[in-house]
Amino acid sequence: MKEDIQARLSTLRKKMKEVGVQAYIIPSTDPHAGEYIPKHWEIRKWVSGFTGSAGTLVVTEEKAALWTDARYYLQGTQQLEGTGITLQKDGLSETPSITTWLTEVLQATNKVGFDGEVNTVAYIESLSQHLATKNITVEDTGNLVKGIWTDQPAIPTEKIHLQELRYAGIGADEKITRIHSFLSTQNPNGAIIITALDEIAWILNLRGNDVPYNPVFMAYLYIDNRHTILFVDENKLTDSIKAYLQENHIMVRPYAEIFTGISALPEKYVYIAGTANYKLKQALLSMGKTPVVHPSPIPPLKAEKNAIEIAGFRSAMERDGVALVKFLRWLLPAVSKGTETEISVSEKLESFRAQSPFYKGASFHTIAGYGANGAIVHYSATPTQYAHIQAKGLLLLDSGAQYVDGTTDITRTIAVGTLTEEEKRDYTLVLKGFIALSQASFIEGTCGTQLDVLARQFMWKEGINYGHGTGHGVGHYLNVHEGPHQIRMNNVPAPILAGYTVTNEPGIYRAGKHGIRTENILLAVRDRESEFGKFLRFETLTLCPIDKTPICTEMLTTEEKEWFNHYHTEVYRRLSPYLDKEECTWLKEATSAI
Amino acid sequence: MKEDIQARLSTLRKKMKEVGVQAYIIPSTDPHAGEYIPKHWEIRKWVSGFTGSAGTLVVTEEKAALWTDARYYLQGTQQLEGTGITLQKDGLSETPSITTWLTEVLQATNKVGFDGEVNTVAYIESLSQHLATKNITVEDTGNLVKGIWTDQPAIPTEKIHLQELRYAGIGADEKITRIHSFLSTQNPNGAIIITALDEIAWILNLRGNDVPYNPVFMAYLYIDNRHTILFVDENKLTDSIKAYLQENHIMVRPYAEIFTGISALPEKYVYIAGTANYKLKQALLSMGKTPVVHPSPIPPLKAEKNAIEIAGFRSAMERDGVALVKFLRWLLPAVSKGTETEISVSEKLESFRAQSPFYKGASFHTIAGYGANGAIVHYSATPTQYAHIQAKGLLLLDSGAQYVDGTTDITRTIAVGTLTEEEKRDYTLVLKGFIALSQASFIEGTCGTQLDVLARQFMWKEGINYGHGTGHGVGHYLNVHEGPHQIRMNNVPAPILAGYTVTNEPGIYRAGKHGIRTENILLAVRDRESEFGKFLRFETLTLCPIDKTPICTEMLTTEEKEWFNHYHTEVYRRLSPYLDKEECTWLKEATSAI
Repeated sequence: MKEDIQARLSTLRKKMKEVGVQAYIIPSTDPHAGEYIPKHWEIRKWVSGFTGSAGTLVVTEEKAALWTDARYYLQGTQQLEGTGITLQKDGLSETPSITTWLTEVLQATNKVGFDGEVNTVAYIESLSQHLATKNITVEDTGNLVKGIWTDQPAIPTEKIHLQELRYAGIGADEKITRIHSFLSTQNPNGAIIITALDEIAWILNLRGNDVPYNPVFMAYLYIDNRHTILFVDENKLTDSIKAYLQENHIMVRPYAEIFTGISALPEKYVYIAGTANYKLKQALLSMGKTPVVHPSPIPPLKAEKNAIEIAGFRSAMERDGVALVKFLRWLLPAVSKGTETEISVSEKLESFRAQSPFYKGASFHTIAGYGANGAIVHYSATPTQYAHIQAKGLLLLDSGAQYVDGTTDITRTIAVGTLTEEEKRDYTLVLKGFIALSQASFIEGTCGTQLDVLARQFMWKEGINYGHGTGHGVGHYLNVHEGPHQIRMNNVPAPILAGYTVTNEPGIYRAGKHGIRTENILLAVRDRESEFGKFLRFETLTLCPIDKTPICTEMLTTEEKEWFNHYHTEVYRRLSPYLDKEECTWLKEATSAI
Repeated sequence: MKEDIQARLSTLRKKMKEVGVQAYIIPSTDPHAGEYIPKHWEIRKWVSGFTGSAGTLVVTEEKAALWTDARYYLQGTQQLEGTGITLQKDGLSETPSITTWLTEVLQATNKVGFDGEVNTVAYIESLSQHLATKNITVEDTGNLVKGIWTDQPAIPTEKIHLQELRYAGIGADEKITRIHSFLSTQNPNGAIIITALDEIAWILNLRGNDVPYNPVFMAYLYIDNRHTILFVDENKLTDSIKAYLQENHIMVRPYAEIFTGISALPEKYVYIAGTANYKLKQALLSMGKTPVVHPSPIPPLKAEKNAIEIAGFRSAMERDGVALVKFLRWLLPAVSKGTETEISVSEKLESFRAQSPFYKGASFHTIAGYGANGAIVHYSATPTQYAHIQAKGLLLLDSGAQYVDGTTDITRTIAVGTLTEEEKRDYTLVLKGFIALSQASFIEGTCGTQLDVLARQFMWKEGINYGHGTGHGVGHYLNVHEGPHQIRMNNVPAPILAGYTVTNEPGIYRAGKHGIRTENILLAVRDRESEFGKFLRFETLTLCPIDKTPICTEMLTTEEKEWFNHYHTEVYRRLSPYLDKEECTWLKEATSAI
């Protein structure tokens, strides 16, 4: 394997010499800047042998280095050993950025090559600007690995299916009209090319199966005031989908024709997002267009869930809650037998969810972290590396499902046996922040950055913090992570508006000891309106008991206990109709007042 | 008077015609973008007759309009009546921005004139960019009112005095060394021109008396690695200040020579802030320099108070607290006699403060708002318009002092008689937010925008908000408003670091009813340090009882009551040594536990 990697790098370097670049960048993305990508675009994995989900490889004539984050320091070290590729630990102050490293390793007049199809406009333009100060230029050489990687998997040809109006709530025609409105306010002679796959799926009310967890399909979508053109592999279209597209006046062109196929259209100004691939921007110039890099208008439209989507979320949460109750009831007796592992409980949970005909799969890879593993924020048990669950300490379980009427994302931390005082205190500090955010009210226009402190305030007083965001938007039978809003410490200027979903997931992670996170999905809804303005509050969508055993009740205020008991009453009220008698008895106890 | 204004506009229009501009902009600032300006630069007031502190006049060949904010809608309407100047109400959605208005009123190829000495680089560059889309250009015509305003007051020649090291804590030499460090990290061939008056006063440990409330003096300061040059009117310098400057190797040149006097120096890159005046940037170009517009490095240096400054603040707060206690003890009996007014109580408060030899004057114009007047956020009683204080409702009193060892800013809202339930509830909601922010802890790097919600969270649940920021930095015997940090809803990216002062001043304002605000100055200090990072908390600097009578104690948690009682214990402990027996008795009662 090490020899394979060295041979691949050697062949790549020959190609680099042929095209005249002294460095070449291979990111871990696809043409759509997705969180999950088809195997076809796993070029960085193939060249470097490093299998982590995030990482950028940079190869020069004599050096090679791979940047990845703290999740993958250990894995990166192991997998890169002997390959000649240096691991660059992103996030450490001593690690140079790729740009800084390039300016140190290269010389003036050198060129940096890259494949414009898998690098974003925003990244390349920023890179180019920084390198220009050292008189180093960038060049889109296309994919230099093409032809070297002989058994490269094909682009997926999975079929596309319809997201029916009874779940989507709003038709593709109406969504396209909203994009026409955007164009008319921007430029009457404008068009837009949408490159983000969840945005395309949302607009067209279509879903796919091309990548894990996100029900999206590989495509580009062109819209102007008279044309809607879907650039997609025709093999993905069933007859009924073809008919649906025709009914909606949506033309179909081959996927790769996005780079050549719109030159005949009269619209001159073509809007693309900064996350569009660089090749597309250059292609627009070649087609005589003026590309306008502008934030996509879709995320705020998609984030504002309509009444049908909200009703779907509520049903999906009941279904998910029922599966979780069955799982939780099973868990402790199973653990007491001593044979359960992080893997086996994940599978058991999925089996409960899969009993529903609405279930479409997991919405992300389950994190089951037992004991000290719970402290590794993006921990992932593997068939060869996992922990047995013993009857002590905490099990952190972060999982989610795709249902046809909604996407779920829930974390519970469960006492599987005796706990330390520190575990209980940390659990209660997380819970206090979680409750504070759950019951927040806020004036219209408030951004997540303003609300974030509510979840952290109690642990901050104890000198504790967590290194991830507090909340992200959740798609409707779409990506479990969506924007434009977030709740986090750094500034994200998108307000949380009525109809937006957002997770509430504070945590505490003590390396080598334990990890704690509690997570629900919230829905922003209208609250009061007064002479002072319009206000919003959160409705909790997720329905699942929160383990009471680790709570230090004396650390909770009366108001916090009231919120907690009220939430549990609601969980019981909503879930019990779908449970048998024994399950109801279990849930009654699990949700009894503290 | 109306005829005077019309005549001034008419003469101005002739001048505009002579220099070939179709519009002319007159802002309300001076060459240093100060909050308070010398009368010499009150050009907008003189031309328009509008005396409010904020407002921009724009004159075209046929129209004239003045933009001002909600504080001045009424005053603007009255003062502009009959002048031919239209009032533009800033902040209303139907009011066009100046730029939009100009693009509507002017035609392509028209020119907009302005005086570069009193318009900032940032404003003119933004204006120029926006007008360019309509092919309208801007031109620095200099001051067209020059010569028209025959009795224009001179630039002040008030003497400058030394801020002694025993109060300033750090010498000018060391401060200049820090600026050398900034320059060396930016550009070895760089220099900086400081235009903000409080920054110059801070660096040089000098104070002046050129504008109300801010102890600053008109000057520019040039610093490169070998020279420090103060551009200032020599008449302002006493012999001892001249000697002091010489000792510190600070050269002196005439104030106006900033625009011509540095051409012989070899430094090419000259850093100026976006708030520098536009004429300065153009002058640098004329002198063969390359102006680099960059945020000033001074505000974060100035904001981080040193140990001597902090000790001074603590003393100043004791002194201020003693004056306030004497005043508060006097207030209710005086009001009961029925002869006190908003003006008379303001004067009484100042008389108590003025008893101290350290007192240098007010740090801003006192806001004494009785009853419904308290709901007008920037209310200012005048000799002709003020309220008599009756024995009912609330009196909002926001005032501050300049002492040689610190600047104060405090708001108390006092029950001067019977209260409504709404007044009590609102008072308690403000107090809850005030307490939450007072006892916040936060991780290093946290910005005020993240903390703001702590002060608003309780009122937001009741559908109430306030339209001003929650907190601002406070200078040390300098400007009562200073940056770089703030606590407010909109994003201000400067973190609140150890040693920064910041006010905590939530409020509730019900038009026609009452205004409530409670304000202390806080000092950010180090709290815990752990595996999770470094944390900060606030120490309250202000020492003055908070009126207990309006509190609905049942709305406070045990923890909130504890904070309140602990604060009052501290107020008594710190102030009682300076009070006589009767005053102590009064304070004991005012700070007794709730």
